[in-house]
Amino acid sequence: MTMRVLITGGAGFIGSHVVQRFVRAGCEVIVLVRPGTTVTPIADLADRLTIVEGDLRRGETFRKSIAAVDPEMCVHLAWYTVPERYLHALENLDAVEGSANLLRSLLETSCRRILMVGSCAEYAPHTGCVDENSSISPRTLYAACKHAVWLMAEQFARRRAWSAATPRIFQVYGPGERSERLVPTVIADLLAGRRCSLTSGDQRRDFLHVEDVADAIWAVAASDIEGAVNIASGVPTPVGDVAREIARQLARPDLLSLGALPASADNPPWLCATPGRLHNALGWRPRFELASGLEQTIEWWRRRIGDADHMSAVSK
Amino acid sequence: MTMRVLITGGAGFIGSHVVQRFVRAGCEVIVLVRPGTTVTPIADLADRLTIVEGDLRRGETFRKSIAAVDPEMCVHLAWYTVPERYLHALENLDAVEGSANLLRSLLETSCRRILMVGSCAEYAPHTGCVDENSSISPRTLYAACKHAVWLMAEQFARRRAWSAATPRIFQVYGPGERSERLVPTVIADLLAGRRCSLTSGDQRRDFLHVEDVADAIWAVAASDIEGAVNIASGVPTPVGDVAREIARQLARPDLLSLGALPASADNPPWLCATPGRLHNALGWRPRFELASGLEQTIEWWRRRIGDADHMSAVSK
Repeated sequence: MTMRVLITGGAGFIGSHVVQRFVRAGCEVIVLVRPGTTVTPIADLADRLTIVEGDLRRGETFRKSIAAVDPEMCVHLAWYTVPERYLHALENLDAVEGSANLLRSLLETSCRRILMVGSCAEYAPHTGCVDENSSISPRTLYAACKHAVWLMAEQFARRRAWSAATPRIFQVYGPGERSERLVPTVIADLLAGRRCSLTSGDQRRDFLHVEDVADAIWAVAASDIEGAVNIASGVPTPVGDVAREIARQLARPDLLSLGALPASADNPPWLCATPGRLHNALGWRPRFELASGLEQTIEWWRRRIGDADHMSAVSK
Repeated sequence: MTMRVLITGGAGFIGSHVVQRFVRAGCEVIVLVRPGTTVTPIADLADRLTIVEGDLRRGETFRKSIAAVDPEMCVHLAWYTVPERYLHALENLDAVEGSANLLRSLLETSCRRILMVGSCAEYAPHTGCVDENSSISPRTLYAACKHAVWLMAEQFARRRAWSAATPRIFQVYGPGERSERLVPTVIADLLAGRRCSLTSGDQRRDFLHVEDVADAIWAVAASDIEGAVNIASGVPTPVGDVAREIARQLARPDLLSLGALPASADNPPWLCATPGRLHNALGWRPRFELASGLEQTIEWWRRRIGDADHMSAVSK
């Protein structure tokens, strides 16, 4: 399929992998980034991409740049994602405004299919796995704003007979993740021989390697499926098991202190999915299991830390 | 209760009655209107109001004017309401942006309670009456955007320990309604001795007189109730019965052609409420029954048409 696809947030953790996947599938990819954003993660694809600098909230100016590149599909990933802060930050309101403006901009293009990337946080708290029909009940401004954007986009698309889907992301890990997040923290601590203090780790999450997430988003985009699609493995995993698997692979279980930190109030005991539509309707399966995904991620961090040590040794 | 209350959309059909009700309750009312809006319906209260001209979407400028009047409560009614067009118009996206900006503006004030006025259209289609726990499923951009704003506002408020409620409006009629709408059309046609063509009128609605709506919104505001509150009578009424009651009061049933027009796709067979929280939790009851409410409304239109005829006779 050759298609002109606009990807917002394409310089981010998930976004950069999505851009690579769509390029590999033969799409003509237009990456929207904020003015001044470094696009390092996708730099080696630079000749196969169109980079558009633009601010989603700058009405008229933004609309003209989107009309000029004339996408046929849009994958909307751009959001405010600073760890901890993102759940309650007012930037979530900005993201809603930006998303509304993005929809308006697409009116002046050939776009007929939109993917608004959502989140597992939109679902009501459950003990067990949620499917796409499970009840919705946002408990944070982040979740509320993600769901608000989907509601708007769904009706906007329906009226125009465009197709619209919302891939809902669960727990993602892999190369390029922000260093403050769980998996990078555990890897960095254990590689450095530092003690790693965590919560009890009893809370269950659905972990999926970022390359699998990107591949699943591609599968959704390339199909004509509409509505919500859980992007997940279907395997509920205690967070502690992820830390223990990293420790096992690095042979440093002695450095792990599970239960040393108190649980956070924003941290529900279960956030797991039945990826019914992804597996059954689209026949999609992940490439990585948790062990192989973590192995590849550890390798990436080892090279990266090695490179950083090398650079710092050279500069001395 | 004396309280400084910011009311957006206060120059509109429902808004002007809400402003009157809050003034009568002793509130210091600040009415936000778009620059250049005529505030005729509330002109006779002018000395008891502060009128602020402002555009909800003009970030910084708007925020400064709201900070200057420093409300303690906000009732957000402003929306795009042009009959027929409002269900699918892009102006609904503007209303979401404006609402997000309103929330941000309130941060710099003494506001601690917000009422975001919502709509019966937010509920999933039902045969029978919906209560506040009935499932939500917007089917138009209007409904999606109304619900989007509530989701955002609810979490925004929760984080700050403000209280937030969303009065959900059902079918409103009464003095000041736009002349293209059902009740004014039937009254005007029958007063003029013209034939009045309608759909079958089998669809059931929950009709409430606009003064009762304003009174119920006041009851919600003055309480500390949170979440959704259906603003309704609890009496499911076929639309045809309303037309027949008007015809009965004007003694012109011969002019009514029910079934002459086809039903609209946007016109569900049932949109009625169990006003459980309003009646049980707040003990509120309407002042008008349908017959007395229509009588008062007919009287208002008769005077208005009379005045217009008089004016036109004088100017000849």
